[in-house]
Amino acid sequence: MKSPLDPLIEQLTILPGVGPKSAQRMAFFLLQLPSSTIETLATTLTTTHQRIGHCDLCYNIATTPRCSLCVDPSRDATQICVVAEPKDVFALEKTHHYRGHYHVLGGLISPLDGIHADMLRLSELATRLQSGSYSELILALNPTIDGDATSLYITHFLKNFSITISKIAFGLPVGSDLEYADELTLQKALEGRQKAS
Amino acid sequence: MKSPLDPLIEQLTILPGVGPKSAQRMAFFLLQLPSSTIETLATTLTTTHQRIGHCDLCYNIATTPRCSLCVDPSRDATQICVVAEPKDVFALEKTHHYRGHYHVLGGLISPLDGIHADMLRLSELATRLQSGSYSELILALNPTIDGDATSLYITHFLKNFSITISKIAFGLPVGSDLEYADELTLQKALEGRQKAS
Repeated sequence: MKSPLDPLIEQLTILPGVGPKSAQRMAFFLLQLPSSTIETLATTLTTTHQRIGHCDLCYNIATTPRCSLCVDPSRDATQICVVAEPKDVFALEKTHHYRGHYHVLGGLISPLDGIHADMLRLSELATRLQSGSYSELILALNPTIDGDATSLYITHFLKNFSITISKIAFGLPVGSDLEYADELTLQKALEGRQKAS
Repeated sequence: MKSPLDPLIEQLTILPGVGPKSAQRMAFFLLQLPSSTIETLATTLTTTHQRIGHCDLCYNIATTPRCSLCVDPSRDATQICVVAEPKDVFALEKTHHYRGHYHVLGGLISPLDGIHADMLRLSELATRLQSGSYSELILALNPTIDGDATSLYITHFLKNFSITISKIAFGLPVGSDLEYADELTLQKALEGRQKAS
């Protein structure tokens, strides 16, 4: 049946994790909402997209030239945490355990996807390290082949800088079961073992 | 961290099956799409909502006073299939095995949710049966307590009409395993047994 809902269903499937079935469910749901709710959703969608750009220092998302984290004087200006995407900043901020600055690379080195080192914001990182007062750089990249390759590349890239480079720990997630952990995770957990206190 | 993405994330969680985590993922995804794609999505959302109303005969969704199924002369005008929601019409049409008309009740009797029989489109159904040439009414309601109650109610409600009332079969879904079927489904499958051909 050709349905008047088809265009909306098709549009909704562009969302990540939304297949034709979920899109249809969403479309029928949206149809029964009041017009005002739909207007708000559509307006929020366009205005958010228009308003949000990148911080011209750390490349986190921002509505001003400098993001709220970069201009916050209470952040520790001796630490800089390197992440792949702005969403990683969100994830780390949620822990409330990191109070330094960030640098968003804009991706990970991935030759198969055609992403090479010169496409990441590495020269911008070098400039920041030269002009800043950073004493520690923390690599917080995904524990994947691409993440590991990027970490390795950055470590080499920054070898002439007098800065401590550390890497977040890979190992067993809290609450998980050693029996069901995959071998690579267990291997990383063994390699990253620390003195029991 | 108060983020400029928060309003969009909040708006996206109104979608069914979308929690804060999926909404955040969607918001970051939407942010990296070109403006034109976002415009199309927002416009489709509002125009679809504005354009789509209900067929004034069967109450399926429609952009015209009569839906495409009601005005289609090739549909069998002796069969009428009673469903709860427009999405059920979609599901049945996808089988390509029903060629009659529909009647959308607008819900199921559910005293706990405050939905009573007089809130469903039952008088409209009676009017259609009086003026139409229907010889069979097929109840295609969910195999739930609410669906069963509504089927029962409609059967009583229409007892003075000379029309055959049938009900779609409840039983084991195709491809499932008898061993893992729940007891109620097995009971329904036994009750609905048919002569093996």
